[in-house]
Amino acid sequence: MKREVLFKPGSIRVSVEEGDTIFDAALDGGIHINSSCGGQGICGKCKVIVGKGKIVSDPSDKLTEKEYQEGIRLACNSRIFSDCIVQIPVESRMSDKILMEKQTFAKGERKISDVEEVSFLDVLCFSPPVVKVFLKVNPPTIIDNVSDLSRLLKELNELEIRNVSIDISCLRKLPTVLRASDWNVTLTLEKNYIDYDLGISTEKSEEIYKIIEVESGNTFTKQYIVALDIGTTTVCGQLLDMHTGKVAAEEATYNKQIEYCGDDVISRIVFSNKPGGRKKAQEAVVSSVNEIIDELLKKAGAKTEDIVHITFAGNTTMTHLLLGLECRYIREAPYVPAASLIPPVKASSVGIQVKESITARSFPLVSSYIGGDISAGILGSGIQKREKPALFIDIGTNGEIVLGNREWLACAACSMGPAFEGGGILHGMRADVGAIEGFSINPITMEPMVITIGKRRPRGICGSGLISILAELILCSIVNRNGKFAKDVDNRRIRKTDTDYEYVIVEADHTAIGKDIVISEGDIDNLVRAKGALFSGCLTLLESVGFSLDDVDRVFIAGAFGRYINVEKAKIIGLLPDLPIEKFSFIGNGSLTGVRLASFSQNLFREGGRIAKMMTNIELSESPAFMNNYIASLFIPHTNELLFPEVNRRLSEAEKNIKKERNGN
Amino acid sequence: MKREVLFKPGSIRVSVEEGDTIFDAALDGGIHINSSCGGQGICGKCKVIVGKGKIVSDPSDKLTEKEYQEGIRLACNSRIFSDCIVQIPVESRMSDKILMEKQTFAKGERKISDVEEVSFLDVLCFSPPVVKVFLKVNPPTIIDNVSDLSRLLKELNELEIRNVSIDISCLRKLPTVLRASDWNVTLTLEKNYIDYDLGISTEKSEEIYKIIEVESGNTFTKQYIVALDIGTTTVCGQLLDMHTGKVAAEEATYNKQIEYCGDDVISRIVFSNKPGGRKKAQEAVVSSVNEIIDELLKKAGAKTEDIVHITFAGNTTMTHLLLGLECRYIREAPYVPAASLIPPVKASSVGIQVKESITARSFPLVSSYIGGDISAGILGSGIQKREKPALFIDIGTNGEIVLGNREWLACAACSMGPAFEGGGILHGMRADVGAIEGFSINPITMEPMVITIGKRRPRGICGSGLISILAELILCSIVNRNGKFAKDVDNRRIRKTDTDYEYVIVEADHTAIGKDIVISEGDIDNLVRAKGALFSGCLTLLESVGFSLDDVDRVFIAGAFGRYINVEKAKIIGLLPDLPIEKFSFIGNGSLTGVRLASFSQNLFREGGRIAKMMTNIELSESPAFMNNYIASLFIPHTNELLFPEVNRRLSEAEKNIKKERNGN
Repeated sequence: MKREVLFKPGSIRVSVEEGDTIFDAALDGGIHINSSCGGQGICGKCKVIVGKGKIVSDPSDKLTEKEYQEGIRLACNSRIFSDCIVQIPVESRMSDKILMEKQTFAKGERKISDVEEVSFLDVLCFSPPVVKVFLKVNPPTIIDNVSDLSRLLKELNELEIRNVSIDISCLRKLPTVLRASDWNVTLTLEKNYIDYDLGISTEKSEEIYKIIEVESGNTFTKQYIVALDIGTTTVCGQLLDMHTGKVAAEEATYNKQIEYCGDDVISRIVFSNKPGGRKKAQEAVVSSVNEIIDELLKKAGAKTEDIVHITFAGNTTMTHLLLGLECRYIREAPYVPAASLIPPVKASSVGIQVKESITARSFPLVSSYIGGDISAGILGSGIQKREKPALFIDIGTNGEIVLGNREWLACAACSMGPAFEGGGILHGMRADVGAIEGFSINPITMEPMVITIGKRRPRGICGSGLISILAELILCSIVNRNGKFAKDVDNRRIRKTDTDYEYVIVEADHTAIGKDIVISEGDIDNLVRAKGALFSGCLTLLESVGFSLDDVDRVFIAGAFGRYINVEKAKIIGLLPDLPIEKFSFIGNGSLTGVRLASFSQNLFREGGRIAKMMTNIELSESPAFMNNYIASLFIPHTNELLFPEVNRRLSEAEKNIKKERNGN
Repeated sequence: MKREVLFKPGSIRVSVEEGDTIFDAALDGGIHINSSCGGQGICGKCKVIVGKGKIVSDPSDKLTEKEYQEGIRLACNSRIFSDCIVQIPVESRMSDKILMEKQTFAKGERKISDVEEVSFLDVLCFSPPVVKVFLKVNPPTIIDNVSDLSRLLKELNELEIRNVSIDISCLRKLPTVLRASDWNVTLTLEKNYIDYDLGISTEKSEEIYKIIEVESGNTFTKQYIVALDIGTTTVCGQLLDMHTGKVAAEEATYNKQIEYCGDDVISRIVFSNKPGGRKKAQEAVVSSVNEIIDELLKKAGAKTEDIVHITFAGNTTMTHLLLGLECRYIREAPYVPAASLIPPVKASSVGIQVKESITARSFPLVSSYIGGDISAGILGSGIQKREKPALFIDIGTNGEIVLGNREWLACAACSMGPAFEGGGILHGMRADVGAIEGFSINPITMEPMVITIGKRRPRGICGSGLISILAELILCSIVNRNGKFAKDVDNRRIRKTDTDYEYVIVEADHTAIGKDIVISEGDIDNLVRAKGALFSGCLTLLESVGFSLDDVDRVFIAGAFGRYINVEKAKIIGLLPDLPIEKFSFIGNGSLTGVRLASFSQNLFREGGRIAKMMTNIELSESPAFMNNYIASLFIPHTNELLFPEVNRRLSEAEKNIKKERNGN
């Protein structure tokens, strides 16, 4: 149930769910409330004055009896049960202008989830790659004693299922199953992807089937496809119930390769080139897949033998490693993968614990650094059907960018480095419990508002937190637009170190790690280089097809990390292009969406193949244009002010306001 | 070089190869020369008088110095090196009339081998199921860095080879091989039989290829297909050089299943139904296949990795056992095999020692007792293209009969029992060294002429020998047409035993087994039942389609055993129909011929599929018409004299002549 909170001063109304905390409401409304423990009730800084309304707060030793009597509560442990009025205390307060600016950023958080639903319309033409058919077969007689298989084929022919072959393992048990079941059997038929065209055309006029399973009785209600997104860090899976057409279970786990093969694709390739490495790397990722499948089956109450097919997408290296392909040349110029269109394989042959006859299909790759996750993501985004050009951005250690519409697609990959995944950042960490993901600074006091994942004591900063922190430091003129700390700011939170400057985000006693969590000039340098790589990648791709940012009708942000990015703040630091917020859509794990779509519809899997073939890959690493763009990007938001008109306007405005306020103090 | 022998008296001219023995020449000319040691020079009975001409004889202690001076030699150890004249001594001589009759039988031995050649004309459209292609691939550059596989596909596309997939094991090594070979590679392409239609139609409009091997450099000259005929008793193989289009080597060995799984298909099925039996039976036949392949490679100086494909045909049970299919229901009414159209399998998956990606294709089966050997045999015979109806007969433990022309084919199988393979016959044996395969009796003296395989001391009697012996006993009125010994013949070779009568073919001191080799009334009884089964099978099949023997334009005799049958003698005993000798053709191992044809031409393999689908199977075991025909067949040649007019005429004539001669004596 929705409740309305009226924040004062400023009279900002925020609509929240009953039971949310005032802290949550402040976040949604872009209201700054000092806080440094991430919302766990430890720092005691997020004091607010509760006015009219039903609000239930946990007791806290951070509040005196007197404060309690005065209606003062901690925002982070006060839950809203009616419309109410909340007063921001003076220490958290900022000017209306800055407040309004902050509210703009709050909008940058919003998630758009309808992309997936739109694509699902296609699935109305439900045509999965594997189907089950229940048959009551007439037993043979002496005058009609054709072979068991011929008998089945005859029955299938009557259902207009023609061109049927059979897996030999299935044929081996056919006679026994037919007789044990009194000639009532369920066949699992795979549309034959062996002949899925790896070459030229994408259409086959005739369906070709293969019987991959024969079961006693009617098992029609038990048929699941496993959809997998094989990420460098995370393996995500869904169990798709092909009887109901619904997602029966969802599960994610770390890619076990992380444990000993390194964090990024380059380390994985290096590892796999060591003696025995390819096999070990394969076993590691396969064990993650098996773990996912186990969990999915448990959650859905299904059995291994109910799985009829596996569809997966992964980046080029992950796809190669999962299938045991040589990936040495992905990394060496001129960056050539073994294959881009991957033949289907027996899942069991790579160690996936399913029945012997089950096929695993991979989404096609485009190049060494544009993988099946991107072709699946594009399918999930529907860009390939749009009239106007859209930009697809997947942010990670590698930034993958696709530009195009229904007529053409171009793509590029750029190495962003691990900064946005927490690598190379003093207190960087992955988006896990205790990671700072949201952040705000009171421009006058320079006191922070820190929001962590899971509202736990801060342990470090994840990618979305880093974007917020950098944007706030810029907006508050604590850090200059060249990424250096402003020397004229005097605040206890800004301090000089042996090498450079740093801003103290959380003091040691409020963290979970027993020491100050800071962001340094070196960290900022890394972030600037990472955002510069991505933005200049976008720019180069646009230029390579004769387009400018103005031609972009829509921007799709994909990837698990992308989901948590504050778009407005990402624009401030020059990570994302300076386009109206309305043009941005988050599509979450677009890869998994694409894999799911393709699992429900053979035509959409073919569409994935068409997408991969359509894509023109631009190699940035060797492009002089890219290098120029990159150098120009090493500024916040960008050396070329014309590329970020709105951001620059806002930054100037903010600087002016802050100067005024600070002088006013 | 051909030499001519003039036998006297009778002035019969026989053309032989230089170096052949007089014994060989006598056999070819239908000349009876007493002999009982099979041609090894031990019995000393085959004395002849050498006239003009160059003849080289080994010394023999069976000839006195005087005899030697008189020009007397042993026919079996005298070799012909010029045209010559040979006098038959009085003890081997018979009347002109009988001599002429014997010569008719000599013609019954002739082999017709041009059937195979005719079919080979089709092969002019050489289109093997697997081809090699040598490619000089352009190496990738940074502006053309598509995947290795895509690069290959592009090259293939330029050769108009489209719709190409790749075996995953091959893809795994592709990047390494391409670079190690400096981008000069030979691809092995399999036309994709995964989608070979098991169902309805037989034509695919488009070829589909699969890359199953990639090799460094140009290996175009090294590509072999293994053609196999998997018999219950014998496994025969040929190594086909796909570069030259020739047979590079040929080899045969016993099917190792014989060692512990029993002699006939029924015993094999029973064995395979025991716990672990199916696996053991499979391993046994596979080990024979591996042995054959080893030998073929050795003979041809080729390597395992040069094998690109395997094509095989076997009867229904052998095909099932080789592939590990359940064959229990082949034996139980209503006699249903697991499959008739067999999907292609990875050869290595059944234990055949070839590369992992190599496919083994089976000729399609028709029914439980009409197997792939028959569909291959029909392909080899070309019946399916003839305008006029032909009969195809494969004689063994099971007699398989096909009748038809280019528009229709009907088939039936009958259980003949093991008699013609030597089973259930006192001195029966397989066609092996020392087996009596040819036989003649001097109707007056009742002395035999015994010819053994390998010209060794007799060890027993094989199928063709049994036919000859029975025919001769009938022709000489030693055995009556009801299969019983004539009680009025008084000769030391005919003797009464505890249970019945027997004829002594070879006395103990001339055998290799140290005891008399005889044929008994019981043996004859078994032979009559076996020939009755086959003939009544033919008759029932003809009747079932409204035909009579007169409608049969041609009779093809297939099978290793068939090759040695004396057709005229087989007609005498009623095994083969009483048709003019010109209508008969031996096609040797028609199955292996068919397999070879199909290995050279994909279209002919499809033709094999069409043949199998065309065939209407008639189940004799449950047919009352067959039972009636069978009862009527238990007479020599047949109860219905009208079915064997010419044979009956000749038998009456022979009886008359013998009566006259014996009385004359």
